[in-house]
Amino acid sequence: MDNATICALATPAGGAIGIIRVSGKNAISITDRIFHPAGTHSLTEAKANTVHYGEIIDADHQVIDDVLVSVFRSPHSYTGEDSTEISCHGSRYVLGQVLRRLIDCGCRQAGPGEYTRRAYLNGKMDLSQAEAVADLVAASNRASHQLAISQLKGHFSSELGRLREQLLKMTSLVELELDFSDHEDLEFADRGQLKTLAQKIDDKIIYLARSFKTGNALKQGIPVAIIGKTNVGKSTLLNQLLHEDKAIVSDIDGTTRDIIEDTTEIHGISFRFIDTAGLRKTDDKIEKLGIERTYQKISEAAIILWMVDQQPSDQEIEDIQKRTSDKSLIIVRNKIDKDSSPINVPSKIPVISLSAKQGTHIPELEQKLYIAADIPEINENSVIVTNARHYDALMAGKESIERVLQGLKDNLSGDLLSEDLRICLNQLGEITGGQITPNEVLNNIFKHFCIGK
Amino acid sequence: MDNATICALATPAGGAIGIIRVSGKNAISITDRIFHPAGTHSLTEAKANTVHYGEIIDADHQVIDDVLVSVFRSPHSYTGEDSTEISCHGSRYVLGQVLRRLIDCGCRQAGPGEYTRRAYLNGKMDLSQAEAVADLVAASNRASHQLAISQLKGHFSSELGRLREQLLKMTSLVELELDFSDHEDLEFADRGQLKTLAQKIDDKIIYLARSFKTGNALKQGIPVAIIGKTNVGKSTLLNQLLHEDKAIVSDIDGTTRDIIEDTTEIHGISFRFIDTAGLRKTDDKIEKLGIERTYQKISEAAIILWMVDQQPSDQEIEDIQKRTSDKSLIIVRNKIDKDSSPINVPSKIPVISLSAKQGTHIPELEQKLYIAADIPEINENSVIVTNARHYDALMAGKESIERVLQGLKDNLSGDLLSEDLRICLNQLGEITGGQITPNEVLNNIFKHFCIGK
Repeated sequence: MDNATICALATPAGGAIGIIRVSGKNAISITDRIFHPAGTHSLTEAKANTVHYGEIIDADHQVIDDVLVSVFRSPHSYTGEDSTEISCHGSRYVLGQVLRRLIDCGCRQAGPGEYTRRAYLNGKMDLSQAEAVADLVAASNRASHQLAISQLKGHFSSELGRLREQLLKMTSLVELELDFSDHEDLEFADRGQLKTLAQKIDDKIIYLARSFKTGNALKQGIPVAIIGKTNVGKSTLLNQLLHEDKAIVSDIDGTTRDIIEDTTEIHGISFRFIDTAGLRKTDDKIEKLGIERTYQKISEAAIILWMVDQQPSDQEIEDIQKRTSDKSLIIVRNKIDKDSSPINVPSKIPVISLSAKQGTHIPELEQKLYIAADIPEINENSVIVTNARHYDALMAGKESIERVLQGLKDNLSGDLLSEDLRICLNQLGEITGGQITPNEVLNNIFKHFCIGK
Repeated sequence: MDNATICALATPAGGAIGIIRVSGKNAISITDRIFHPAGTHSLTEAKANTVHYGEIIDADHQVIDDVLVSVFRSPHSYTGEDSTEISCHGSRYVLGQVLRRLIDCGCRQAGPGEYTRRAYLNGKMDLSQAEAVADLVAASNRASHQLAISQLKGHFSSELGRLREQLLKMTSLVELELDFSDHEDLEFADRGQLKTLAQKIDDKIIYLARSFKTGNALKQGIPVAIIGKTNVGKSTLLNQLLHEDKAIVSDIDGTTRDIIEDTTEIHGISFRFIDTAGLRKTDDKIEKLGIERTYQKISEAAIILWMVDQQPSDQEIEDIQKRTSDKSLIIVRNKIDKDSSPINVPSKIPVISLSAKQGTHIPELEQKLYIAADIPEINENSVIVTNARHYDALMAGKESIERVLQGLKDNLSGDLLSEDLRICLNQLGEITGGQITPNEVLNNIFKHFCIGK
């Protein structure tokens, strides 16, 4: 970390107001230089956590903007450093001018995630909490939001802390054995006890690593494929499923344009519809491209909605079942407004009868989708791995602890066990980070943050 | 104005942080209800202009977000009411949840410009200052920014205040005359003095109204048409002219996507290129559509850049001069990298020789554009009318004061003069507003504001 005082826009330009963040040793004095307070006190005399009204002045003493400046003092700030936040009118021009003034007076433009990086380096949060900040900013539904909050509050870090304690306990037991290894008659570490402990650690790591499947699906959205013959009503159904969510989005925020994705939220979980762009453009394109395209969609999905508007043949059912053996299959029997006769399918396949056109029984389908997703109840205390970097570290840790287990089985000497325990500790330690985290790793993590965070 | 406590997002979602504004009688108590402070003090006990760290909690006691809350107390806030600003993580989901919580606890979603409208209704600013807030948010170059700041600081309001004083003085002189009108031998108001005063008022109104031409051009950008034959280098020149400005824009703010307009800033003034979309897509399209299209572009422009790559014929020069008699014409002699022989044109037409391809002599062209725009020096004290509503009011006021002038000439009685003076006062008064401003007018002004401002 360099010692520069950094500045950046923390909000997109184009709103009613725009916030510029300044952080570092000279944050308050530099802000004070370009600020004319409405009152008599300069910012350098300001108490921590106070807000000040005044003007930002350019080099020619012209007013750039009427602003509010909040003053934070180390260590009680987001970064842990002296900081200010300048609340300006949201004009791109105004914000640009204020940033330039700050840079002219000695600030450096912050890189992506540099505030959070400094918060980490100054011990305000560990690395997994820093990553949770980015997840929180990106959260688009209840589940991913709760997971980000849980991680930000340190619940995942606490789990890792407990694993670390157990690993340290094992290491000290093994190293105690090593120190007295010339006393052949002494066996300080009960190898049975060590095995139990190693197995417990391994189980916990496996449990956490497994949760990544859920965590990743929650973060990306549960992939759903809608398949079926031409004109069976696939795009009509999709519109019904997407409808409610979009209405909510446009209700909340009229100020920003949004890339509309084909995802919908059901009971707080995001569902992502695969390859729906083509599906929505032309209903029969898929048929034209051949059945392979449908199979590809199936392979990418976790849940398959198979739409039919009449009794499928036994051959068709058998074929689809074979193709979707490792997926959740739901049969959607559409067009009950025209023909309400029941269809016969194997009882283990859930069936929902509806009219996509009339929008009937959509909540029942959503309920079935929610059940098929098989997501555990998520709240702000849930510990679920959502980050590929954490998953990789857990899998590496798993390998190490399983080498220890094998070593115990093979009655290997303590020094070999100790080495693998240290490796496992380091691998799990990478998740929360520490003084040893290489710059390269940090760069890789923070480059995905937005500027100003 | 209703008594509701209002809330709205004041920044576009999608940045590092997002700000929610709450204003009204219950702003602090409602925010306090959904806020768990990290310290021990509730927001209701908080001092004015202080910042508080804590969590926003949902109805199920789950954390929605870690936030900073700023507390402002009436009358020392933007709206003049008790207010809070909640600084959240910039996730659309999080911001939506916080807004919902506020609405569930008794807030109403604010309409466009409702904060500024309340600031106006609570006497924090007059109507022309309120309009300057929207201009400031929209300002995209130095000139329009300075004009907005000047108007926000009340320089235009002061000019109007002086006009008002003169009108009131005239009115009282005329009414004094009326009160003693039965004393036929007394003439309290020296009619010569009244004439001088009315003429002075008329001159000032005309001066202000005339400035609207400049103000409007600065706000919208000076319209420039680039005309010339196919392949003379029009789009290459345009790219050269647009280049620098775009680089600056993308430098300032990497966080937002922007609609790139074909405007460029030269010495702080915005120039807008007419019909450049077609020009950039295909060079020869204009020729295909015929010469009428070029003439239309000329009619919309204030400045014409006529590009040539060889000596134009006398007939061509005469034709273009006739077509552009009320415009600023600049001849751009392109491709000097291939042929640097001078061209002969009437000496009163400015000529600039350059190579658009090599980007040489572009600053000289910009200087010529700046001179052709003929804009007076703008600073934060400049009083220039930029708003069509103000222009209309000034023109109406001009009509009234000129009726007074004519009345004085025709030796009309005081009661007729007095009536027109009152009308003039009311017309100019509409600009800064007052208790009498109808809701309809206010609605019309504030509907163009963004939500949260």
